[in-house]
Amino acid sequence: MATSATAIRSTDGQLSAEGLVHRPRIVVIGSGHAGLEACKALSGEDVDVLMVDRNNYHKFQPLLYQVATSGLQTGHICMPVRHIFQQQDNFDFRLATVLGVDLEAQLVHVEEGPPIHYDSLIIGAGASVAYYGVEGAEEHGFPLKNVADAVELRAHVLRCFEEANRNPALIEGGVLNFVIVGGGPTGVEMAGGLRELFDQVLRKDFPGLDLNRVRVILLERADALMLPYKADLQVYTKDALEHIGVDVRLETAVTEVTPTEVRLADGTAILTQTLIWAAGVRANPLADVLSETEGIEQTRGGRLVTDEYLRLPMHPNVFVAGDIAGAADPQGVLYPQVAQVAIQQGIQAAGNAIRAHRGLGPEAFVYNDLGMMATIGRNRAILELPNGTGMKGFVAWCAWVFVHVVKLAGFRNQVAVFFSWVYSYITWDRTPRLIIDVEPETDEIQEPALSVTG
Amino acid sequence: MATSATAIRSTDGQLSAEGLVHRPRIVVIGSGHAGLEACKALSGEDVDVLMVDRNNYHKFQPLLYQVATSGLQTGHICMPVRHIFQQQDNFDFRLATVLGVDLEAQLVHVEEGPPIHYDSLIIGAGASVAYYGVEGAEEHGFPLKNVADAVELRAHVLRCFEEANRNPALIEGGVLNFVIVGGGPTGVEMAGGLRELFDQVLRKDFPGLDLNRVRVILLERADALMLPYKADLQVYTKDALEHIGVDVRLETAVTEVTPTEVRLADGTAILTQTLIWAAGVRANPLADVLSETEGIEQTRGGRLVTDEYLRLPMHPNVFVAGDIAGAADPQGVLYPQVAQVAIQQGIQAAGNAIRAHRGLGPEAFVYNDLGMMATIGRNRAILELPNGTGMKGFVAWCAWVFVHVVKLAGFRNQVAVFFSWVYSYITWDRTPRLIIDVEPETDEIQEPALSVTG
Repeated sequence: MATSATAIRSTDGQLSAEGLVHRPRIVVIGSGHAGLEACKALSGEDVDVLMVDRNNYHKFQPLLYQVATSGLQTGHICMPVRHIFQQQDNFDFRLATVLGVDLEAQLVHVEEGPPIHYDSLIIGAGASVAYYGVEGAEEHGFPLKNVADAVELRAHVLRCFEEANRNPALIEGGVLNFVIVGGGPTGVEMAGGLRELFDQVLRKDFPGLDLNRVRVILLERADALMLPYKADLQVYTKDALEHIGVDVRLETAVTEVTPTEVRLADGTAILTQTLIWAAGVRANPLADVLSETEGIEQTRGGRLVTDEYLRLPMHPNVFVAGDIAGAADPQGVLYPQVAQVAIQQGIQAAGNAIRAHRGLGPEAFVYNDLGMMATIGRNRAILELPNGTGMKGFVAWCAWVFVHVVKLAGFRNQVAVFFSWVYSYITWDRTPRLIIDVEPETDEIQEPALSVTG
Repeated sequence: MATSATAIRSTDGQLSAEGLVHRPRIVVIGSGHAGLEACKALSGEDVDVLMVDRNNYHKFQPLLYQVATSGLQTGHICMPVRHIFQQQDNFDFRLATVLGVDLEAQLVHVEEGPPIHYDSLIIGAGASVAYYGVEGAEEHGFPLKNVADAVELRAHVLRCFEEANRNPALIEGGVLNFVIVGGGPTGVEMAGGLRELFDQVLRKDFPGLDLNRVRVILLERADALMLPYKADLQVYTKDALEHIGVDVRLETAVTEVTPTEVRLADGTAILTQTLIWAAGVRANPLADVLSETEGIEQTRGGRLVTDEYLRLPMHPNVFVAGDIAGAADPQGVLYPQVAQVAIQQGIQAAGNAIRAHRGLGPEAFVYNDLGMMATIGRNRAILELPNGTGMKGFVAWCAWVFVHVVKLAGFRNQVAVFFSWVYSYITWDRTPRLIIDVEPETDEIQEPALSVTG
């Protein structure tokens, strides 16, 4: 109790060495795929595991667009962290917003309560939205990273329809123009999801509205959608979206966003009150804080540079996994920011942390690429295997549903809730079209207090 | 298009007499039980029905406490209004907050858009919380009227447990004391629901916390709980709550609420950061506006005085139904503010509106009392029939579940969602224990602009 370090441990509820052996504490920042898998991989180990996140739930990010398009309820894609780990004795959770890390003192600084001491740290803080400096995009655009984003976007879209129904003259002003920026998986899935919400559900909800005046416009800066995929799958994606009525515009860059329109690089503008920003991600701002306060090197997209063992250089007890990690394959290419990489890195980081506590050397991360897939809408999806084999259409869609159902089932163990989810998904039963206002969560973390570095 | 009245009708999307017969428009304020049943009763009639509400969904109020105690998801008890009325051709909906009514000009003034013209009006705006002037109650207490209230309370309760888990010293300061004011159905159901959330779910979520230190305290000013019920059912309710660990305190009045404690009339105080205010309701503030701007008489609880036909005196085309209605039975006793009365009054008001348009005289409202019931917790409920027959315990609970399941099914037609709900309810499967911040909805309506009365 004499030094401030022990005092900190005491307030954290961890006993210091008064007759008890000190178990190493592994702190995991983030409840996303990386953090979740890291904690699971530490099950049964002789360590204390403490996950820190500002939300008390894990969200199944790949289906977040379904919440935004009224397809699923928030509860369908969120699971309380404590529920997931109810059977894991060495697990505890801290609801807190991380402000920064003092690597030398081995402390995680949080907004709520005293700093948290760690013996090993796994940083899986994920990514936030990148606006690339486009004027007005952050202020007026709708991102889609958090549950609150999805609920807010859902409410906004439904309000646009209520507005248009009240006063059809507003349609001229673009109230029913929905513009999505970014032709990657999020943008493509949102475009398809919106089109189906409009054509299959809202068409019945608003019999007095001319639904043919609703426009879904997908803007992509490059000359193709779904860039990492093979060319024929890119073309298929564009054709499939156009088939269901999405206006796809390639080689179209946004220069400015205002409350009433989106301005394009060619000098034209699209009237809209709904600009969905799916154009890119940037590492969680925690990476910037670590760069500023601890001199940690960042790479493309703000990601934290790691060695092949997923460790921060010079800090062998600090691991980075998932979207915030700037780990590179043996050819020096950064791993893609996808769920599979996060899952595998989370497991590897946990394994290397345990090996270190056992006095063993670390193992290099080897990515087992399982391929990639995305859905374009009901019955249409694309899939590409690591060997270059591509699949598209209904078979790919069945594969997509199967994989996502199995993955979701992995963290859901209530059979009835699970089947309700499957039912909702399969039938496109969209009762959650509720306008409930939610305070936006923030991906911004506050500047660390001076004491963090001092 | 010449007069301002026609202009208003045009912007409302209603055609004026250019070759078309003018169909009378019945405007219904409120999407609660009264408004919902009124609109349903108008199905097939040769009128235009327009429901106005600031939420786009009907909520099943009797199960709101289940959302607050993580038992059900919001989507389980909410149904979009447009979904309910998808098959009703003469129905339309306006998402708007009502500011006031100009009874002479037959206009409903709303915050969003131009005023809405009506030929007949049915006011079913419901009730808001009554704080009876208790200092700090509105500021620091948690009401339970809206979906946002329930989501906010749920997040707060879960945060209290997270706080206590982080720093058990806070338990001394009352972070795990949950105080409920009001021993009516809402207070009793909340007390039982919280106790079960704590003992059956959070006990497993927080293995490091001493759950025996969690206190649920129910305060009632009178000398019995569940006042309108027979004495033996009141006693049973108290015994049943105490059996599951609720600290019931009768003849206990609250004088002040602060962020950290509740002060009582006897000079003592209870340390708590969670004061749930279930002590009473008052008519929606729209009633006060009608009193101030239109001179309409109010009775107990601010309710609008009506004649036996549910009409505002002197305004035969304006009907009032549900919690905001101050209708009295032939003995002059006000009807209770319960769902059954709202449902029956909504139907009666709609019927009388139609009769008036057909040139028929109105029919007096006769309440068909079906009895009352309330649940105390799993397997325990009370029930009293109009003839004075009482029931309690497991049989009453089965009856309660049956009635609520049937009623909820009445507005839910998705079999799988419905069974998921039944499953969740029966198994006490509480996965929706999510902390998602919601902006509180407001029951306050703004002061009408001067032009309303001028």
